[in-house]
Amino acid sequence: MPNEHNDYVRDLVFALKKLPGIGERSARRLAFHILSQNDAAAFGLADSIINAKKHVNLCKICFNLSSEELCPICSNSSRNSKMLCIVENPEIIYVFEKSGNYNGYYHVLHGLINPLEGVGIDDIRIEELVDRVANGSFEEIVIALNPNSNGEATSFYIQKILAPYNVNITALARGIPVGSDLEYVDKNTLAEAILGRKKF
Amino acid sequence: MPNEHNDYVRDLVFALKKLPGIGERSARRLAFHILSQNDAAAFGLADSIINAKKHVNLCKICFNLSSEELCPICSNSSRNSKMLCIVENPEIIYVFEKSGNYNGYYHVLHGLINPLEGVGIDDIRIEELVDRVANGSFEEIVIALNPNSNGEATSFYIQKILAPYNVNITALARGIPVGSDLEYVDKNTLAEAILGRKKF
Repeated sequence: MPNEHNDYVRDLVFALKKLPGIGERSARRLAFHILSQNDAAAFGLADSIINAKKHVNLCKICFNLSSEELCPICSNSSRNSKMLCIVENPEIIYVFEKSGNYNGYYHVLHGLINPLEGVGIDDIRIEELVDRVANGSFEEIVIALNPNSNGEATSFYIQKILAPYNVNITALARGIPVGSDLEYVDKNTLAEAILGRKKF
Repeated sequence: MPNEHNDYVRDLVFALKKLPGIGERSARRLAFHILSQNDAAAFGLADSIINAKKHVNLCKICFNLSSEELCPICSNSSRNSKMLCIVENPEIIYVFEKSGNYNGYYHVLHGLINPLEGVGIDDIRIEELVDRVANGSFEEIVIALNPNSNGEATSFYIQKILAPYNVNITALARGIPVGSDLEYVDKNTLAEAILGRKKF
C-alpha cells in the first residue's frame, strides 16, 4: 500500500489512532487532511498541542485542568463553599458549568474504579477527596458519575468512605431525558423514571 | 465556562475543530484526552504532525503524497503503463491499492469541480492530467470519482476535455454494493443496478 510505505504518514496515522473515537479510517482521513492543509494550519495544530500540554496542569485542589496553581473555580471565593460535586473528568465540569445550575466546587476523580481494567481505589483521586471532605466545610456532596457499572461501583465506594463525615451525599436524578420520545427510552431508564415519579 | 477561560485549552479545541468530521464536542473530548496523556504521547502526536508536514509533499507526476520527488507508484516501472486512474484525493489511491485489483498509474485531482464553493477547473489538477494524457502512452483512463453531483460534473468535464486523445475513457461500475441488503439500497442505486444488469 503506497501511503503505508511512507513512514511519516504511517507515524501520523498511528499517533492519531490513539485518540479516543478515532479508528484506522478516521485517522487516515485526518492525516490526509492535515497534509493537504497549508503549513500554517498544520504547524498551528501541532503548536496548539504543545502549548496546551506545556502550560496546562491540574488544579492543586480539585484536579480540574488549569494553567495556574488553582483553577478559576477553586480561586473563585464567591461560589457556594458548602457544596462539592464529584465528577469523573474535567469535561464534566465544562458541561455542568454550561448548564448554569450548579454553583459549588468540584472534585475530579480522573477515572472510575474499573476492576476489569485494573483501575483501583488508589488509581483515582479518592484519597484527596476524603481529605477535602474531612478538612472542608462541605455540607452536601453531589456524586455525579456516569450511570454505568463502573460509575455505580465508584459511587457506592465513595458513599461508604464518606459515611463517617457529617455531610449529605446526593446523586443526580435519574429519569426520562428532556426532549426524548418515550417510545425509544430504554427499559432501565423507564423503570427509574416510574420508580422516581413525582407529584405535580 | 471554566475551561474556556483557559486560553491554551481553547486554542487547542479551536485547532482540532478545523479537522474534518470533528465538531465542538469531539474537539473538546480530544483536547481533554490529549491533556490527560503523559508528555511523551502528547508531544509525540505534535511531532508526528510536524514531521509528516515537513517531509511529505506531492509526487511531481501524479500528485499523490510522497516524501520523495516521485511516489512509490510512479517510480515503480513494473506497473501497467497503459492505464491511468483519475481520483479525487490520495486517500482513494490507498483504497484502490488495498483492493489489489488495479495495477496502473494514478492521477490525483485534489478536489472536484464545485461551482457552489467556487472550485473551478483551474483549481484542481486537470491541466496536468491533460498534459499526461497528451504526452503519455495511456490507452485507458478510468475515471474513479465519487458518485455525487460534483463528481459527475468533474467526470463529464474530463470526458469532454480528453475526447480529442486516442484513449478509452471508462468509469467504475455502479450497482448494488457487495453484502448489502436490497431492502435498504437507495432507489438511485437500485435504478443503476437494474439498468446495468448483466447476463449470468
